[in-house]
Parts: sequence; structure tokens; C-alpha cells
Amino acid sequence: SGDFARSLAVRLVCSGFRVVVGSRNPKRKASLFPAAAEVTFQAEAVKKADVIFVAIFREHYSTLCDLADVLVGKILVDVSNNTEINHHKESNAEYLASLFPACTVVKAFNVVSAWTLQSGARDGNKQVLICSNNQEAKRTIAEIAQVMGFTPVDMGCMSSACEIENIPLRLLPAWKIPIFLALGLFLCFFTYNLIRQVIHPYIREQKNKLYKIPIEVVNTTLPCVSYVMLSLVYLPGVLAACSQLYYGTKYRRFPDWLDQWLQHRKQIGLLSFFCAALHAVYSLCLPMRRSHRYLLIETAVKQAMEKKMTVWVEEEVWRMEIYISVGIIALGLLSLLAITSLPSIANSLNWREFSFIQ
Amino acid sequence: SGDFARSLAVRLVCSGFRVVVGSRNPKRKASLFPAAAEVTFQAEAVKKADVIFVAIFREHYSTLCDLADVLVGKILVDVSNNTEINHHKESNAEYLASLFPACTVVKAFNVVSAWTLQSGARDGNKQVLICSNNQEAKRTIAEIAQVMGFTPVDMGCMSSACEIENIPLRLLPAWKIPIFLALGLFLCFFTYNLIRQVIHPYIREQKNKLYKIPIEVVNTTLPCVSYVMLSLVYLPGVLAACSQLYYGTKYRRFPDWLDQWLQHRKQIGLLSFFCAALHAVYSLCLPMRRSHRYLLIETAVKQAMEKKMTVWVEEEVWRMEIYISVGIIALGLLSLLAITSLPSIANSLNWREFSFIQ
Amino acid sequence: SGDFARSLAVRLVCSGFRVVVGSRNPKRKASLFPAAAEVTFQAEAVKKADVIFVAIFREHYSTLCDLADVLVGKILVDVSNNTEINHHKESNAEYLASLFPACTVVKAFNVVSAWTLQSGARDGNKQVLICSNNQEAKRTIAEIAQVMGFTPVDMGCMSSACEIENIPLRLLPAWKIPIFLALGLFLCFFTYNLIRQVIHPYIREQKNKLYKIPIEVVNTTLPCVSYVMLSLVYLPGVLAACSQLYYGTKYRRFPDWLDQWLQHRKQIGLLSFFCAALHAVYSLCLPMRRSHRYLLIETAVKQAMEKKMTVWVEEEVWRMEIYISVGIIALGLLSLLAITSLPSIANSLNWREFSFIQ
Repeated sequence: SGDFARSLAVRLVCSGFRVVVGSRNPKRKASLFPAAAEVTFQAEAVKKADVIFVAIFREHYSTLCDLADVLVGKILVDVSNNTEINHHKESNAEYLASLFPACTVVKAFNVVSAWTLQSGARDGNKQVLICSNNQEAKRTIAEIAQVMGFTPVDMGCMSSACEIENIPLRLLPAWKIPIFLALGLFLCFFTYNLIRQVIHPYIREQKNKLYKIPIEVVNTTLPCVSYVMLSLVYLPGVLAACSQLYYGTKYRRFPDWLDQWLQHRKQIGLLSFFCAALHAVYSLCLPMRRSHRYLLIETAVKQAMEKKMTVWVEEEVWRMEIYISVGIIALGLLSLLAITSLPSIANSLNWREFSFIQ
Repeated sequence: SGDFARSLAVRLVCSGFRVVVGSRNPKRKASLFPAAAEVTFQAEAVKKADVIFVAIFREHYSTLCDLADVLVGKILVDVSNNTEINHHKESNAEYLASLFPACTVVKAFNVVSAWTLQSGARDGNKQVLICSNNQEAKRTIAEIAQVMGFTPVDMGCMSSACEIENIPLRLLPAWKIPIFLALGLFLCFFTYNLIRQVIHPYIREQKNKLYKIPIEVVNTTLPCVSYVMLSLVYLPGVLAACSQLYYGTKYRRFPDWLDQWLQHRKQIGLLSFFCAALHAVYSLCLPMRRSHRYLLIETAVKQAMEKKMTVWVEEEVWRMEIYISVGIIALGLLSLLAITSLPSIANSLNWREFSFIQ
Repeated sequence: SGDFARSLAVRLVCSGFRVVVGSRNPKRKASLFPAAAEVTFQAEAVKKADVIFVAIFREHYSTLCDLADVLVGKILVDVSNNTEINHHKESNAEYLASLFPACTVVKAFNVVSAWTLQSGARDGNKQVLICSNNQEAKRTIAEIAQVMGFTPVDMGCMSSACEIENIPLRLLPAWKIPIFLALGLFLCFFTYNLIRQVIHPYIREQKNKLYKIPIEVVNTTLPCVSYVMLSLVYLPGVLAACSQLYYGTKYRRFPDWLDQWLQHRKQIGLLSFFCAALHAVYSLCLPMRRSHRYLLIETAVKQAMEKKMTVWVEEEVWRMEIYISVGIIALGLLSLLAITSLPSIANSLNWREFSFIQ
């Protein structure tokens, strides 16, 4: 009769199921549940139900042992989550299954938040990952999830339970290193560019160029970060090939750092693209600035007063034209790479196509 | 032997199945079907087939009752659609199942258009949603759909039939309110900006600034719409929290208007992003305009004639630099939000990651 | 004991399975496999295993015939690929099934590269397509794939094997014609614009405008390509409708060229969008160029010297304002079209919504 159980009961009642809630203190708790859900003692509830959602903490699983006789042949749905990744040696669901060998245990609904359960799957992830050793039980729970408005996903047999229990604890683990890397690189290059473009002219020539910080300095920093990150995407592949050549075999495991690096390539590449795209937008904004306008007018006025008509410097014109057109083509190609890393596109490519595009 | 039946027959024949078409008037209709499909009387057709596609209107289901004896044990596939959402109390498939309790009824193929059926699943949605209470029959139909080039999706038991029948009638229902909201806001702000930037200077100073309408007025309108829409994404969450605090419980249903609002947040947010992106492109186009060029030259000429060299206004420079850089960062962050609302990305995030990004 | 077999063994051992490798020369090969995998003679290996991965070429399937007695009742997984699309009349898996009628044959893992197998499914496609006539065997292999970190996808019965075997040989077949078409159109329009904007002024007026090639000529070429491609998306639909009107039936197959064309519409449309987006970026870059800056200053200086104050040409101002705003709106609408062609979005739209957006 906890928080999750209440949300589950609300949703099940809304979806047209008959719900009986088992509680140690049914009288006090009854008011917390929707009117359509019957709240009674655990033993009573278990007798009346075919599918039992075990919405209690792992530590209290053993308190159910008194009910072992009544539970025989029923489906127990383990909805529990851990507080730490790989906290226990065996997953909660497997532990539950070992306590009640006469029951069918299904792992499900742990990836759904109490809020989503209560209010219905509106946005975000609608998937409910389900695993069990019993096909029939898995199908029953999948159909319940379907009726409740979720998308059931078959995750195979009970050995996947551990993986499923770790999912809600994850917080973008693959992104942590790449993001800190990008931030570190940004800081380094930003400091260098700040000294070069703002502090140095100020000290040497007493010119106040502080206005360059928010756009120009950032804009010269971003492509540096992007370049370094992009090279970090392709470097580990080369290192891995070298290591294979050196050891003369493809079947030796790479050292851990290289393995980690190889696994983060996609995230590093996407951050590189993000920096490149920001650089493009910053560059496009340059002519919009007041400072650009003032400098332009100043030059025009100066030349008008000097009666100097021609200002054309062929070399500078060509440098800029080529710089911009190469930049656009590079951004276009990086966009294609970024698009193919969308899960739904990646899943429609075979590995030959994927490596061709890469 | 209607339109859908012919498309279905064409596709089934192309996929290598043997097709027998049952018609009340086989002789007249035979010419309409591919040569490989045998067209005969309904009773004949039913006898020869294992899987029977019931491509007739709900109103005529009862005309099949004469064939009830021959139908025993066969799989009936209900491909029908309704003309209105929730037109009948029970879904067509459930109605068919109630008429022929000795048959196995499967709901499938209603989400596919006759055109897609005939020409093969080329672009757009390739999914065929299937539901039935009988696993074996569902699998048979799924395999037929697979061979026909579609992607079968298991939607669980017969109770999903109603939902599946409503799908083809849907026309972006979640987008209607947000789009009208955005249009309304756009009109209001556009009128205000038109008066302020064009009509007011005309009346007061007789200045003709009509040229500002297509770009400048639109460009000052878009960010206003975007801001208001973005605030409307986060407001209902606050209201919901207040309502929970007021009533002291998380388990009370929200009033209907708040519930509706909470359900449209994703669409409102995406429209807000769309306006912000358009605003970015409009702003970037500003220096491309002739009017910008003329004004710039005019200022330069004026200053050259006044022999005024310095035009630098530190405050205006800083205001623009900061305005642009904050704008770019905001757009970058909104892009991340927009990307995570793609279904394939949202499905790879758990709710902790999703709410972290939000 | 080939390359693929070794990668498979590495992965299976890593995922906790017990692996026995059958080889004709176990002593020499043992060193190539992970220590945890037992390498022995084929007959020995087959006796010990429940699931047998047949990682040998189609030509050598018949060498297994000696083991037919031991193989009875076991699951054979065909992981083979062909070297050409539709090389043999029947798929490898079906051929294997015909050789060993007493075994259950499952087609799986052929879409996975040896590299992905060995290093785990990191990025790119994680799907393993599985087909078989036996549900139980299919489920067993699906669970093995799940534990190995892949996403099993049920592709139905054995008749899909041919399709699955063709997948790894595909190299973006639907893109070839549209890409060559776009390149061809680009070349034509580029030549025309080069002559018009660079060569012609040079010959007639001896003006050196070579600097226009990298950006301006490309930028006037891209929208032409984009327009023609976009019209090629909508033209075949009209032709198809005409052909239907002419023949008076919807059920006649279109001529092959029209059919091909109809099938490539999505790709042509996406390339059209890509060209339009590049055109937008190129256009936005125009005011960033040195040449733009020089021309502007030159005009200003010239006018200052002629004491000409007003430079405003109302018609040119309006032309540019309207051109830009229509361009932005067109790009915004094309973006929506492009987004709806992402597989995960397309799958969430019914055909009514899809054709509404189109």
C-alpha cells in the first residue's frame, strides 16, 4: 500500500481491471486508494487475485513467506527497483523467484515512474520492459500493460532482470565522460583565445576589445573543440587497428581504456557536431552585430575622406570564399553522420551501409 | 468484392498466396480481380479458405450468418473501419466475434490504406496492428503481413480492437488545440507589432515603413509567440503541483482542463521550438536584405559628409553581443529538448534521464 | 572455426554461454579461440550442443550430412550470407532445412558483422533478424541474442530467409538513382550558371569574377536542383493518376519505369530538402564574405564622393523582403516534410495524417 502501489491501483482501475489491495493495515490505508479498489489484508487479497503485483521492498519479500501456500501457481509481478546499480548479487526478481519456486515470477513495470503510471503514458518513454522464464505469464502481463496504454517490450528470460532493474538508475552514463571532455577542451581553448584576442591587445596596445568575449572568442573556440573531438572519434579505431597488428590477432581484448574510448565514440561525435553547428550559427550572426556595422561604417567613412576608391584585396576575398564553402560542406556531411546516429535510422541500416556512411 | 478487397487480393496474389474471392455476383466481378485470384460465390470461397478476410461493412456482417456452419474453426480477419470515432458501443471486431463464437476473430489491416495495400508498403507507416484473443491466429496473420512486406505489431487481446479501429480516423488530434493557440497568439502579437512598427510611425511621422511587414514585423512577432508557448509548457506542471498541495493528496484527479493542458505540453513545446527556429532564421536573414544595405550606405554617406569619424556606441555594441549569444544558447538548449521528443530517442531514455533533460 | 565462428564464440563465452567449437582440425585451431571455449571434432561438438551455429559456407553444408543422425531434433542456426543478391534460387537456410529435415533450422545473426559480434553491439544497428518455422526454436535463439546484447526481431516464417540473407548485401539501393540524378542536375545547372555569371562577363566585359565560383555560383545552382527534384517527387503521382484515368481502372500495374519512380519519391524529396537547406546556409553566409564587404564600402565611398544621399530603391527592397520571407516559409514547410519521413515519426502517423502532411 505504498506510493507506487497506489499509482498502480489508480491506473489499473482506470483501465477497467478489478483491483484488490493487500495491506497490513487495510482500514487506515483504504482512504488512500480509489473507491473501486478493494483494500483488505494481504492473505485475503492474494486469494482473490490471479496476478499479484509485489510492490514491496526487497527486504520485505520474506514477509510474504507465510502466504506461500496461497501463492502457489499465481503470477507474481516484481516491480521493485534498487537504489544502487548492481547492489545485490542477484536481481530482485530472481531473489523473489528463489523464495517462491511454486510461483511464476515476471519482472515488469519497474521502468515506469509512479507519476507516469498514475497519469497515463503521455510523453517520454511508453515502454514497459518485461522478462520472465514463463511465456504465458509474460504474455498476460504484456496484455495488461497494453490495456494500460503502455508498449510492452519482451526482454527474454529472467536473466535479463538484472539489466532491467539497472535501467531506471542510469543517468546518461555514456555521456558523462564526453561532456566533461568537451567542457574541459572548451575551457582550455577559451582561455587561450581570450588571452590572444582580448588580453594581449589590451596590454600591448591598450585597446579595449572586451566586447569580443560573448561572440567572437566563443566562436573561435567552438571549431577548435569540434575538431579535437572529431579527431578523438577516429583515433581509437586507428589505435585498435595498430594494437591488432602489433599482437598479430583480432581476438585479443583491447586494454580497458581503449575499450571505454571505443564505446564513447558516438557521443563524442555528436558533441563534435553540436559544437560545429553552434559555430555555424555564431558565424552567421557575425554580420548582425552592431560592432560589425560600426566597423564597416568607420572604414567607409575613412576611405571616403581619403578619396580611396578601390578596396578590393583579391587574396582576402578568395580566402573567405573558400573558407565558407568548405565550412558549409563539412557541416552538411557532419549533419548526415548525426542523422544516421538517430536510433530509428541506425536500425534501418545494415553494417555495410553504416560503415560506408561513416 | 469491394475496393479494399481488390487491393488486398492484388497484394496477396503478388506475395504468393492463393486467393479465393467470395462475391454475391462472381461473374460480374471477376474481371476486376487479378487473373490469379479465383472469384466465386461466398459459400464456395469460405469452404476453400483457411483464413477469411471479412472485407464488408459492419452492417452486412449478419449476412454471413448463413455461412456459420462452414465458418466453424476458421480465422476471420476483420479489416473494417468506422466512419466516426467510437461510433458503436463495441468494436466491429468484437461484434463479429459475438456473431461467430465458433470462429477465431483477428483484427488487422484496417490501418493500411487500399493504396498502400495495392502498391506495397513504400513510404510512410508500414505497421499492421494486430489483436486477437487467440495467439495462434494472431501469429498466422502476423506472418501473412510479414510476407506482404508490412511490419506486424502485436497489440494484445481483443479489447484493443476499439483503439485500433479509431486509429485511421485520427487526424493529428493532439495538434489541433496547440496549432490554433499558436495561430491566435501569432495574430495578436502580429497586429500589435504592425501597429507599433508600421502604422504608428506612418500616422505620426508620415514615414512609409510598409516594407517592414514581411520580415521585421514577423520577426518580432515570432519570439513573443515562442516565449508565451514555452511558458504554457511549464505552467500546467506548476498548477498541478499547487492543486496537489492544496488538496493535500497526489491521488486526486486534476480538473479536465488541466488534464487536457498537461497532455498537450509536448506539442506546445514543439511549436514553441518551431517559432524559435523560424525567428533564428529570420534574424540571420536581416543583413541580407536590400533595406539593411541601403540604410548602412546612407549612414556611411551621411557621416562621411559630416566628417564624423567615430560612431562606436559601447552600450549598443554590448547589448547586441549579449542578446545574440544568449539567443544562440537558448536555441541550442531548445534543440536538445526537441530532439529528445523524437519517438526513437524518447524510447531510449528512462524517466530519470527524460526529466533531467526537461 | 572460421573468422565469424571465432567472433561468435568470443561473444557467446562473454555472455556466459558454454561453447563447444567443432572443427576438422581442432588441435591447430584451438589456440585461436578463447580459452573458455572447448575446441573439438565436429561430431563431438554436435553431440554436446543443443543449439548448433552452422558457421560454414553453403557449399560445405553437405559435408555435415555424415552427422545427420546426431543432429536429429537439434536447432541449427544458419548464419551464412551470400556474395550476391538472389544468388541461389532458394535461401541458404531453406537449403539447409531441406538437407536436414529432422532438425529445426533458424536463420539468424547473418545481419551482424564479425566485428560487432566480437566487440558487442555498441553503435549502429543492434537488431538480429530471426526467422524460422518453429516458434519454440525462434524463441530460444531470440533469448540468446537478447543475452548477447542484441535486439531480436521476429521476421516470421522461413520464407523470409531469402529477404534476410539479402539485407547485408544491400548498399543504399534506393539512394543510387536519386543521388546520381541530383549530381547530374547539379552539374548541368552549375555549368549554365558558371557560363552566365563568370565566363560571359569575362568574355564580354573582361571582368574577372572568378571569386564567385565557390559560393555564388553554387548558391544559384542549389535551388534549381532543389526545385526540379521537388517537382520530380510530385510528378509521378500525377502521371499514375493519368494512367489510371486512361485505362479506367485502379488495378492495372503501372509500367516499370513509373513504378521505380514512385518508389524513389521519398529519397528524391529528401535530397531536394538537403539542397534547399544548403541553399539557405549559403545564402545566409553571403553577407559574411569579404567581397560583400568590399562592394558595400565601395558603393558607400562612391556615393559619398558624389554627395548622393538617398539610395533607396523601393522596388528592390520589396523584392528582397518577399523573396526572403517566402524562402523561409518554404524551408520551414519542407523541414516538416523531412521530419515526418524519419522512420520513428512515420510509424506514429496513420495514412490519413501522412497524406495530410504531404
